[in-house]
Amino acid sequence: MSVTYSNGPDPASTIAKERAQTNFDLDVMNQFLEGGSAEQAAIVKSIYLQFERDPILSTSTAVYDLTKEQKRELTARKIARMAQYLENDTPAVFSKRLHLMNTVDPQVGTRIAINLGLFLNCVRGNGTDEQFNFWIHTKGTSQLKGIYGCFGMTELAHGSNVAGLETTATFDVETDEFVINTPHVGATKWWIGGAAHSSSHCAVYARLIVKGVDHGVKTFVVALRDANHELMPGVSVGDIGAKMGRDGIDNGWIQFNNVRIPHAYMLSKYDKVARDGTVSNAPLAQLAYSALLDGRVTMIYDSFRFGSRFVTIALRYAVARRQFGTNSDGLGGEEQLLNYPLHQNRLLPYLASVYAMSATGDKMNHYLEDVINNLEASVKTADMRKIGASIEDMKNLFVISASLKSTCTWLVSSLIDECRQACGGHGYSAYSGFGQGYTDWVVQCTWEGDNNVLAMSAGKTIVQNVQKVLKGKKNPSEFAFLNSYKAGETSEVLKGPVGNLSTLLVTFQTLVGRLSGHANEILGQNGGSWEVISVHQVNISKIFAHTYILSTFTKRIAEVSDPAVKTQLTQLAQLYALSTLSQYSSLFLQYNVLSATTLAEVQAEVGVLNTRVRPQVVGLTDAFQMPDFAINSALGSKAGNIYETYFGLVKNQNDPSVTKAPYSAALEKMLNRQDLNVRERNERTEQVLRILGGDDE
Amino acid sequence: MSVTYSNGPDPASTIAKERAQTNFDLDVMNQFLEGGSAEQAAIVKSIYLQFERDPILSTSTAVYDLTKEQKRELTARKIARMAQYLENDTPAVFSKRLHLMNTVDPQVGTRIAINLGLFLNCVRGNGTDEQFNFWIHTKGTSQLKGIYGCFGMTELAHGSNVAGLETTATFDVETDEFVINTPHVGATKWWIGGAAHSSSHCAVYARLIVKGVDHGVKTFVVALRDANHELMPGVSVGDIGAKMGRDGIDNGWIQFNNVRIPHAYMLSKYDKVARDGTVSNAPLAQLAYSALLDGRVTMIYDSFRFGSRFVTIALRYAVARRQFGTNSDGLGGEEQLLNYPLHQNRLLPYLASVYAMSATGDKMNHYLEDVINNLEASVKTADMRKIGASIEDMKNLFVISASLKSTCTWLVSSLIDECRQACGGHGYSAYSGFGQGYTDWVVQCTWEGDNNVLAMSAGKTIVQNVQKVLKGKKNPSEFAFLNSYKAGETSEVLKGPVGNLSTLLVTFQTLVGRLSGHANEILGQNGGSWEVISVHQVNISKIFAHTYILSTFTKRIAEVSDPAVKTQLTQLAQLYALSTLSQYSSLFLQYNVLSATTLAEVQAEVGVLNTRVRPQVVGLTDAFQMPDFAINSALGSKAGNIYETYFGLVKNQNDPSVTKAPYSAALEKMLNRQDLNVRERNERTEQVLRILGGDDE
Repeated sequence: MSVTYSNGPDPASTIAKERAQTNFDLDVMNQFLEGGSAEQAAIVKSIYLQFERDPILSTSTAVYDLTKEQKRELTARKIARMAQYLENDTPAVFSKRLHLMNTVDPQVGTRIAINLGLFLNCVRGNGTDEQFNFWIHTKGTSQLKGIYGCFGMTELAHGSNVAGLETTATFDVETDEFVINTPHVGATKWWIGGAAHSSSHCAVYARLIVKGVDHGVKTFVVALRDANHELMPGVSVGDIGAKMGRDGIDNGWIQFNNVRIPHAYMLSKYDKVARDGTVSNAPLAQLAYSALLDGRVTMIYDSFRFGSRFVTIALRYAVARRQFGTNSDGLGGEEQLLNYPLHQNRLLPYLASVYAMSATGDKMNHYLEDVINNLEASVKTADMRKIGASIEDMKNLFVISASLKSTCTWLVSSLIDECRQACGGHGYSAYSGFGQGYTDWVVQCTWEGDNNVLAMSAGKTIVQNVQKVLKGKKNPSEFAFLNSYKAGETSEVLKGPVGNLSTLLVTFQTLVGRLSGHANEILGQNGGSWEVISVHQVNISKIFAHTYILSTFTKRIAEVSDPAVKTQLTQLAQLYALSTLSQYSSLFLQYNVLSATTLAEVQAEVGVLNTRVRPQVVGLTDAFQMPDFAINSALGSKAGNIYETYFGLVKNQNDPSVTKAPYSAALEKMLNRQDLNVRERNERTEQVLRILGGDDE
Repeated sequence: MSVTYSNGPDPASTIAKERAQTNFDLDVMNQFLEGGSAEQAAIVKSIYLQFERDPILSTSTAVYDLTKEQKRELTARKIARMAQYLENDTPAVFSKRLHLMNTVDPQVGTRIAINLGLFLNCVRGNGTDEQFNFWIHTKGTSQLKGIYGCFGMTELAHGSNVAGLETTATFDVETDEFVINTPHVGATKWWIGGAAHSSSHCAVYARLIVKGVDHGVKTFVVALRDANHELMPGVSVGDIGAKMGRDGIDNGWIQFNNVRIPHAYMLSKYDKVARDGTVSNAPLAQLAYSALLDGRVTMIYDSFRFGSRFVTIALRYAVARRQFGTNSDGLGGEEQLLNYPLHQNRLLPYLASVYAMSATGDKMNHYLEDVINNLEASVKTADMRKIGASIEDMKNLFVISASLKSTCTWLVSSLIDECRQACGGHGYSAYSGFGQGYTDWVVQCTWEGDNNVLAMSAGKTIVQNVQKVLKGKKNPSEFAFLNSYKAGETSEVLKGPVGNLSTLLVTFQTLVGRLSGHANEILGQNGGSWEVISVHQVNISKIFAHTYILSTFTKRIAEVSDPAVKTQLTQLAQLYALSTLSQYSSLFLQYNVLSATTLAEVQAEVGVLNTRVRPQVVGLTDAFQMPDFAINSALGSKAGNIYETYFGLVKNQNDPSVTKAPYSAALEKMLNRQDLNVRERNERTEQVLRILGGDDE
């Protein structure tokens, strides 16, 4: 042991003591979080075990000291390693493995998902069976072999407005080829993950031009690099360089300069160009962007898991750290941070939100799978009624996933930021994990659909759904709660006591209806100009998302049989609902869904629930069963020995025997510099000035 | 010119066109922003000019590609360069130079401010005149010569709770020395800026122990390094390593191992130890922390200037960037982002807030100067009544600066984040400046007083001020608006029309009173336990800060004579007040300061004001007169040629002629790997399995 003059703090004992008071079964709780499935929970554990022990995939706080170049290289090595696991995994296991990698090392997850997600799904969604089989299976893409695809959608001057992209694919009827062009700098493909150095092929979104007629944006497979990884002629590619985060991803720019591809390289499940140049279009233009759905749905799931990682760090720290006052826990020392009501109020609602999102994240994965499978099956039958129904399902999924993706990714951005601040100065240390966690995460609010654009779009559909109701029509299941909407209703829905989850769900649903109804009225007053209600649309989307999350969470809780686990989950659901209500209380008040008096009751109840959840916090974070290497934080290890751990790794990663910095000379020279008059060669002395002034003899 | 197939977007013409429609005098507006002083505005301009042309101090987007080590070195070279300017500047000019550096390169600003701010102010606030003269002037500190000081307050296990620090300074009456000790790991000085590699001396906060009695935390000057920059014996120092941002700062840890310093090294303006060990204490314990005041006040000013930098980037981009729809500006192309109401609503209230903060930032600089000067003068007179009054002033300044520092730094964190998101994907490029801007900035929410701790403390005093009123006492000027508070008043204060600034100020003031009154009631119901109202305290502090900012802003506007400038400022003040009200509308509704109907009017008026401010946005951002090098963003240059600028620097900083990454081999090996069965040496073939199973002949 070290020499010590007095006993320092002993955070590990505090954590251990609280861990011992856990009053529910951690494994049962963990299964709940893993989609209610013991099998899934076991798969997660086995993958974590492999990651932790893998020489390349394991991680430590050393990553926070890597440069961009080092991260790029490590990421490439990890991808190659993941490819070996891929060869052995079932698709379901690899899918889970990739999901977990999104939390352990998001840049690796993304760099693979660009290929196996975006590129593959683009070919699947837009290509014929033959095209899919060729590009994905025959060529090896699905095994991370032969082809490494990237996703060429966004351009320098066009992100969200995909329909406005300017890259052209001109059909040359003579040669039966498409000529791909970047007509000007603004049309340069931009942000393309993997393009800078990794990808061999690109799924290019380009305007189809046939005989001078613009048929809108379609998809094409274009080779970027040959089998020797040399750039193809006519293809210009570059690295777009440093980013706020995700340094491991080689986002690039691409310019196509009269690049000719065969007719058959156009993905033509729905969109087709006949040999003579006749064009037939897909039944729904958005089908071309279905590749984005998988990413959006994954981000909802990632919100749960990434959120659980960071809330665990902040909560373990808040239990272990003591500041001010005197604690009554018998272990001596100052008060634990988490015993302060303000600190509880900052963190425990986030814990509840993470629990709530787990159910929705899992549900959405299945939902997406079903919609895609149904669509593919219906296309095979060529039954237009079935195809129509599938497209309707997909539209609904677009709306729900847009609302959830934007709301959940924003929520987790706030969560990481609040959790960092809740760890005080130490949260700012790179080794706490928050810095890279935040900078890696926040791009989720922007890519694959900017959150504001997605939320507006979801909000618009919800308003339209209310318009349907006003016209006497009904909405399908996910929006069925709107069917009871009546214009002009302003009675209070939530009255005390405020903890009933069914009533709370109706409270949220009512607000969605009233907000949408009000937005619709404004719309009517403004001649149908949607822009006027854009702020409302975003609010509608957010409240809808919380309605959806609450509904899914409570349904899942109803299936739980273990009473101790159920008690914890019910409390968390109440805390989630009431704290979310409190967060958006201005809207609830404004639409009279509750009164100011009831709101005060809600806020008081949040405080009460915080104190109820408080004693089980160590258990509730342990239940995520996220191993230390995956949490990867000086402040968040399970044992809770924060000071020794943190100090140890700081010394380990920053050798204190190197006592002078490489730049020390510059500083020493400054500190030891001569006086200004000497350095100016004493040429401002009175004597000199007299000489120069001609006053001297 | 480059080869191009069609005309790309022309954002520069859009910016130019809008610039031409500016209807107010930019210089007059700029003077308003620079404390209403033409002289100050001229000084700012001359410093920018020197920075821009200085070979070492100028900056470019190349900094976003530097590693931590490169940033550390560059920062050291910049400090040495700043020292040369310091020798020529008047104190007022150098102070402004340092302020501007906080925005141009925050890490340089901070690293100097640790020495010339924290260390110097600690010696000034706690040392005798002789001590101050010796350490600061005779030794050269004030000229960045000889001594480079750091500020040894926080410890690994103690940040906010300064009174709980555990480093000890034990008086040895035999030798007339203090023995400085770090008794255990938790007491290691931590986060000490400049300690890792730069500082020669440290202002150490340590518990004074005399004859076994603990007299609380006092301040001492301790040498860390000798004239050869070698660590002193008994002093252990290390680098705390990577951080979320501010890579250029060498934050370190320090352990003192029986380090002996002379008696006279204790700073003893107020706290004194006589030769025989008799201790006399300062009249106000917080005087020991007065060194932090300067930093807090500077952060309020920095909030204005840093905010103006990032809101300029986002607004220029929002004017230049076009997406969706069709624009009616005659220049052709899609709609400008800033013509969308949602986009206006996201950004223009921040523009208004930045304008509003300018006045408060300036005021607080003068306020601090006055308080410190008065205190020093009163101490010299030894008139206890005057000293008492000065200490009272300082207490008020503590409260006001705590409230403003926390509210303004949070506001700018949100501002940078929202501005980044408003630039879509490109906001995530490091070259946009938002990434480093954000990660550099957010530590302001934590250091020199954690925002929640500060806000709670300010809120507590405000509640106590209301308690005074309830007891029939009066508050001094800054809190005089509370004197009219009466318990139980719940009438609406703001009724339409909502744009009157005086009424809006009363609206905010009323909320502060009612919130505090209500908190006080809860306090009474809970036996005076402040923790129960901690959430309220934070809210009170936030609303108070906005009250203060609004009041200062409107007073300054009243002094403006130029009618066009006044019109713009008045609109911005209305937008600031109404959008802030809208942001906190839940509180205003809950305390019935306005009705839901009036709130709807407020929200509508925000929309109207947005459209009024909209046409002058280029002028209003130009008026900051922040040069391109200082804004340092691919997206925010004055000319607005975003795509060419951005693409140009990306190519310049990431050479596209390097077509293969250094790690290419790892990827190529993966893509070109043999099939799994070959790599497994074909040992899973049916034939082999038969052999191994003994089934083979």
